[in-house]
Amino acid sequence: MNIILSGFNGAMGKNVLELISEDESLMITSGIDRKPNKYYTFKQFTDYSDENIKGDIIVDFSHFSLVPNMLEFCKRTHTPVVLCTTGLTDEILKQIEETSKYVPIFKSGNMSLGINLLIDIVKKASTILEDFDIEIIEKHHNKKVDSPSGTAKMIANSIKSVLNEKEFIYGREGNDTKRKKNEIAIHAVRGGTIVGEHEIIFAGTDEIITLSHSARSKKVFAKGAIEAAKFIYGKESGLYRMDDMLK
Amino acid sequence: MNIILSGFNGAMGKNVLELISEDESLMITSGIDRKPNKYYTFKQFTDYSDENIKGDIIVDFSHFSLVPNMLEFCKRTHTPVVLCTTGLTDEILKQIEETSKYVPIFKSGNMSLGINLLIDIVKKASTILEDFDIEIIEKHHNKKVDSPSGTAKMIANSIKSVLNEKEFIYGREGNDTKRKKNEIAIHAVRGGTIVGEHEIIFAGTDEIITLSHSARSKKVFAKGAIEAAKFIYGKESGLYRMDDMLK
Amino acid sequence: MNIILSGFNGAMGKNVLELISEDESLMITSGIDRKPNKYYTFKQFTDYSDENIKGDIIVDFSHFSLVPNMLEFCKRTHTPVVLCTTGLTDEILKQIEETSKYVPIFKSGNMSLGINLLIDIVKKASTILEDFDIEIIEKHHNKKVDSPSGTAKMIANSIKSVLNEKEFIYGREGNDTKRKKNEIAIHAVRGGTIVGEHEIIFAGTDEIITLSHSARSKKVFAKGAIEAAKFIYGKESGLYRMDDMLK
Amino acid sequence: MNIILSGFNGAMGKNVLELISEDESLMITSGIDRKPNKYYTFKQFTDYSDENIKGDIIVDFSHFSLVPNMLEFCKRTHTPVVLCTTGLTDEILKQIEETSKYVPIFKSGNMSLGINLLIDIVKKASTILEDFDIEIIEKHHNKKVDSPSGTAKMIANSIKSVLNEKEFIYGREGNDTKRKKNEIAIHAVRGGTIVGEHEIIFAGTDEIITLSHSARSKKVFAKGAIEAAKFIYGKESGLYRMDDMLK
Repeated sequence: MNIILSGFNGAMGKNVLELISEDESLMITSGIDRKPNKYYTFKQFTDYSDENIKGDIIVDFSHFSLVPNMLEFCKRTHTPVVLCTTGLTDEILKQIEETSKYVPIFKSGNMSLGINLLIDIVKKASTILEDFDIEIIEKHHNKKVDSPSGTAKMIANSIKSVLNEKEFIYGREGNDTKRKKNEIAIHAVRGGTIVGEHEIIFAGTDEIITLSHSARSKKVFAKGAIEAAKFIYGKESGLYRMDDMLK
Repeated sequence: MNIILSGFNGAMGKNVLELISEDESLMITSGIDRKPNKYYTFKQFTDYSDENIKGDIIVDFSHFSLVPNMLEFCKRTHTPVVLCTTGLTDEILKQIEETSKYVPIFKSGNMSLGINLLIDIVKKASTILEDFDIEIIEKHHNKKVDSPSGTAKMIANSIKSVLNEKEFIYGREGNDTKRKKNEIAIHAVRGGTIVGEHEIIFAGTDEIITLSHSARSKKVFAKGAIEAAKFIYGKESGLYRMDDMLK
Repeated sequence: MNIILSGFNGAMGKNVLELISEDESLMITSGIDRKPNKYYTFKQFTDYSDENIKGDIIVDFSHFSLVPNMLEFCKRTHTPVVLCTTGLTDEILKQIEETSKYVPIFKSGNMSLGINLLIDIVKKASTILEDFDIEIIEKHHNKKVDSPSGTAKMIANSIKSVLNEKEFIYGREGNDTKRKKNEIAIHAVRGGTIVGEHEIIFAGTDEIITLSHSARSKKVFAKGAIEAAKFIYGKESGLYRMDDMLK
Repeated sequence: MNIILSGFNGAMGKNVLELISEDESLMITSGIDRKPNKYYTFKQFTDYSDENIKGDIIVDFSHFSLVPNMLEFCKRTHTPVVLCTTGLTDEILKQIEETSKYVPIFKSGNMSLGINLLIDIVKKASTILEDFDIEIIEKHHNKKVDSPSGTAKMIANSIKSVLNEKEFIYGREGNDTKRKKNEIAIHAVRGGTIVGEHEIIFAGTDEIITLSHSARSKKVFAKGAIEAAKFIYGKESGLYRMDDMLK
């Protein structure tokens, strides 16, 4: 499969590059980025207007401003795309939906297959373990400015999507902090260089189920993107999500 | 719901008793055991031949030799049963199947809802996380004579049921022990008074998913039995398993 | 060793009783409690004024109001005591100190040898792992009203005793929650029937050390008391603490 | 502090380089390796015979064959060395001891401060938690050929150094595998790209203490070497070990 790599200079682009170089079934035939990179031997372009761009599918970790141009390319050349760029505007989201009528588009806010599987089984566990108490612990490096993590929120919201009455709190202190039944506490641990760990605890009567995910590098997200590319290649037009890979 | 408790003198019977006493919707109306127990106020019988045995459903943690007699009672009086007794002979298994044409029968080798959910999601994860390496760690007290635990074997076999090529090993030592792709190592940790812990590790590229269950007392299994009783009460005749409660 | 069990009707008294019954080197020769218990065969007394009270050492899980009377007995009869009763007034604390000039007295707020060892090694790790970030996670059952647990506070204060600049927080939420270097977050997880788990995380550059303790029943504290009894028996007069057993 | 980096082309050399570039108090003034590297701006030498080699201390992750030459340099120029190269012959070990009479030499088989602290507290815990059962779990990537890991063996031997009667096993299987009191099972988990995790479990009566270390990259070992350099710089002649940094 010939890949068009969108955003090859970014951290994620480099991770995708590294994984592709280790996979004999894949090759980068074109790369798109604002600036060229003399160390790379594939053909490089600054945007999607050039007619010499060639490849079976786009893997995109670029910038939202590049996306409209890219989607036009997809539609014009019938090239599917794994779209991992974040910060998309409503207008772009509309364009994505429109374009997906003509080509397969894969889109996800977290490209880790593992995290998406975790969310899937957490939802299942939440519906089955009715009277268990649910708590979430996430751990990240000491430079992270937001708490809890976006992924922890995704997990928490996925639980709320099946158990509507749940409410989130972010810590406990005091002599009057007895747990309410519908409470989910999300605990944000910060320290060192931890890449990202998420743990969901279901505590019942003398029984605890713990479902956890630990990312050890950003490569995880590159890997998910490549798997998504293999997954949608050859599929019908449409908008695909991580969920579709989990069926 | 009125419960007939089969095997009230055993460790599991006592745990069922304790949980029922805490649940206002449940009451023990009859108890069956070889020996009477003067501390209990419910009506006591030594077997199922007595016409005064009364109750909506049987919860059975007795002895396999009592089961045939009990199944005849179920059929005669249209009383459903949650059958948790182990060591059943082929003949009894046949009788169970036959009897389930007339009444609902719930039967499971491990009554923990949590363990059964764990097995369910482990199977799902095994099919999705294709190129992840799977390993199992189980922990039990230092008096346990068999390794690995029956539950660890159940989990391992459930993985093999979806990934046929898997083979089990039980430890690694030496300078030539590189992991084979189709290997699943099952590690039996023994120490102290640990009731039972099971952990399934899916290790991929820079990403680890861990699914675990920790039982803190035998009450867990009593609880599962009571939930099963509530589940099959009022249902059609048939043979039910833990899986049916997880749908 | 002949034990005088103080507070035999309480939950902790029963746990001590059970452990002593399993240990051939120990025997209860007298028991003190406000009410007699017909199931117990040892001699029972309602307070320490009786001259027939006999034993080599007292294990005390009673009520603070009984303590002054007990300390007088200790002094008068040269009987050492493992004093595990909590809620002691300043006046009683003074009496303890005074009495310890005549007999060995062992006193601790948490009788688990494991927790006390944990605190000891946490202090050591805190001084060695200078630039690591420290965080604490504790888990308890959903009926607990105070957060964080007393033991978590003991652990946190022991860290502060060697790293004075540390400050405690109890959760993180928002877009401006970047970790301060001197912060220790204490996360209180609540759920199910968890007896008590404490985990101290030292997160550095690409390296994490985790020290944890899990109590699975209250027996742990009874065990610590018995070990303390064996430890101070035959020792010189003085006030002993858990720390002394860890040397 | 001016560093002479020995073995700058190796994986560990690169990690040391990266950490030094982030630390304003450190600078590489000379580098030694068989082959030059045009990307590096410090002065490069192929061995230790050159008179222009300059620096306050050597950090050495090179090859055992380079060590004799390096030790002569240390003695001649009174330059201390952090010696992290492995596979040293007996002859070299003798030369190290001899040279340490003239300069400070720091030598360790595992440069992670965390692992060395872990070993230190494991030894302490082993002597205190007398009747606890000890088990070890280590986890590494699926390419590792030896089991258990060298570090797991170091940990196990450090336990045996204080509890001589301990014996090691490497797995359990069968119906007659009841744990012997003096047994320590070392479980080698293999999967994915795990860098290295070590967990020591002390399981007692209703109480479990777990001490664990997780390395997330090789940078950990580079960091230990730099800390060792800062530690021995300015110290008296002698042979130093990780233990000395833990006091």
